[in-house]
Amino acid sequence: MKLAVVGAGAVGRSVVRMAGEYGHTVTAVADSSGAAVDSDGLDAEAVLSRKSARGSVGAADPEDALATEYDALVEATPTTLGDAEPGFSHVRQALDRDRHVVLANKGPVAERYGEVRRHEAESEGEVLFEATVAGAIPVLGTIADYGPAQVTAVRGVLNGTANFILSRMAAEGLDYEHVLAEAQDLGVAEADPAFDVEGTDAALKCVILANVLGDGSHTLADAEVSGIVDIPPSALSLAEEDGRTVRLVGEATPTGIRVGPRLVPMESPLAVDGTENIVQLETTHAGTLALRGRGAGGDETASAVLADVARLDR
Amino acid sequence: MKLAVVGAGAVGRSVVRMAGEYGHTVTAVADSSGAAVDSDGLDAEAVLSRKSARGSVGAADPEDALATEYDALVEATPTTLGDAEPGFSHVRQALDRDRHVVLANKGPVAERYGEVRRHEAESEGEVLFEATVAGAIPVLGTIADYGPAQVTAVRGVLNGTANFILSRMAAEGLDYEHVLAEAQDLGVAEADPAFDVEGTDAALKCVILANVLGDGSHTLADAEVSGIVDIPPSALSLAEEDGRTVRLVGEATPTGIRVGPRLVPMESPLAVDGTENIVQLETTHAGTLALRGRGAGGDETASAVLADVARLDR
Repeated sequence: MKLAVVGAGAVGRSVVRMAGEYGHTVTAVADSSGAAVDSDGLDAEAVLSRKSARGSVGAADPEDALATEYDALVEATPTTLGDAEPGFSHVRQALDRDRHVVLANKGPVAERYGEVRRHEAESEGEVLFEATVAGAIPVLGTIADYGPAQVTAVRGVLNGTANFILSRMAAEGLDYEHVLAEAQDLGVAEADPAFDVEGTDAALKCVILANVLGDGSHTLADAEVSGIVDIPPSALSLAEEDGRTVRLVGEATPTGIRVGPRLVPMESPLAVDGTENIVQLETTHAGTLALRGRGAGGDETASAVLADVARLDR
Repeated sequence: MKLAVVGAGAVGRSVVRMAGEYGHTVTAVADSSGAAVDSDGLDAEAVLSRKSARGSVGAADPEDALATEYDALVEATPTTLGDAEPGFSHVRQALDRDRHVVLANKGPVAERYGEVRRHEAESEGEVLFEATVAGAIPVLGTIADYGPAQVTAVRGVLNGTANFILSRMAAEGLDYEHVLAEAQDLGVAEADPAFDVEGTDAALKCVILANVLGDGSHTLADAEVSGIVDIPPSALSLAEEDGRTVRLVGEATPTGIRVGPRLVPMESPLAVDGTENIVQLETTHAGTLALRGRGAGGDETASAVLADVARLDR
């Protein structure tokens, strides 16, 4: 397929680098300051080295990327809340042109899911967004195959940064600030970690899941969210004495979204360590299904984007 | 979709019972002694109660089931080795009529994969077989979405009966014969358990995986297989002293298939208990993905069959 990639962060760059290996052609790449466009297919390495050398993928107008020839738009700009712009408008422009959309950006499907689906219904294009929930883990594809009506609830550890901090606090008996600093040194946590440690990122993933399972009316405002910032090391050692530990667990049902620190047994599948994610699906006829793997990372998330592209290609 | 179900064992009966809930119509059901056919859709409950009351789903000729109107043939007759008949001929008849095929029967894709693919290439119909590997666990769908070329190896605990026996032997220090008898009382093991405990069932699943990952030339004859029959309780207690346990692990790569008892660390994801299955996919760009759930059971396997039907319906 011909792909136009909007957003040249870690995920966008990995999609550009990996697309050829998966048999696809990148006809456009845009970042906030410029774009590279070639309807016959761009030279990925050239675009990526220009990005690292000059800070931008190219000298063209970013709008040109959306106007060029492509089968699927890969929307990988940063997630924004509220109006979810500019992501939402990118999705709309692609659907208005009867093109497919593959989202890595959570905003449009977390904050304006109903509108996205209404525009999709009027388009020849389809919208897929596997990459928005738990990176490389095929949660949405599995729900689609089972049928959303057959999945009654989804529960999981959906933020690798928060999980890394909690596992380190439990393992070393260190306090939150100390481990956060360590995580920042390792590049596991952002300079401003609020989005991850306050539970917002996990909540957005649960909102998307609730929208897929339910009537699609949920937004972040409906989520009951608490983060890990106030957890004292003593809480973790108390839990450990009881054979349990604390994990930031997100839960989504067709009607509700909850994210917060939960006590889980040490041997529970939910007690994953480090930056790993795990997602449990409760099904009507197949019991509980657990999917575990890397929930973040450029190449990992890009492989979820390319899995959606493969679905659209069939 | 309209489904013709051939084979009325646990899986076939569950497909018949569940199809309506998933929005599909069953136009034919056949077992070894008879068939029920109605191109407008059968009354599932009536067919199933006739099966339990009189031992057969109906008075029609089983061949009529294959000749009736349907979009996808669900082939759920018992797995046979070698020529994989009568399953293989059922697949061929459906493809010759340009119909889709969904397999729960491992034989055709384990023993005659290349032929199945060649007939599929000449047909408008498609062949899917999620239910043949690890029941409810979406292994093949995940490989299809990632791209077989992006999955370098698959490793897993693929037989619930063998795993139940090993976990019980380890937990209770009991010997093989004792636990096997218990498993047979519980209905977890067949009266003739050879297919499960000698590793044949797990090997067939690995052969199918190797065919999907590689050139499709593998058969059971290529598999290096050893079972769990000769494992003494002492081996399990020795492993335990070392923080490990024994699991019947199957491995498939594009070029080879191995199944046998392996030492695995207690905390390894492979150390699942009871009848659960786990499958680990090694990927090129997304690290290791682990999928865990129920690897057997009528409804569980039927939900994998219906996931394939959903893929064909899109």
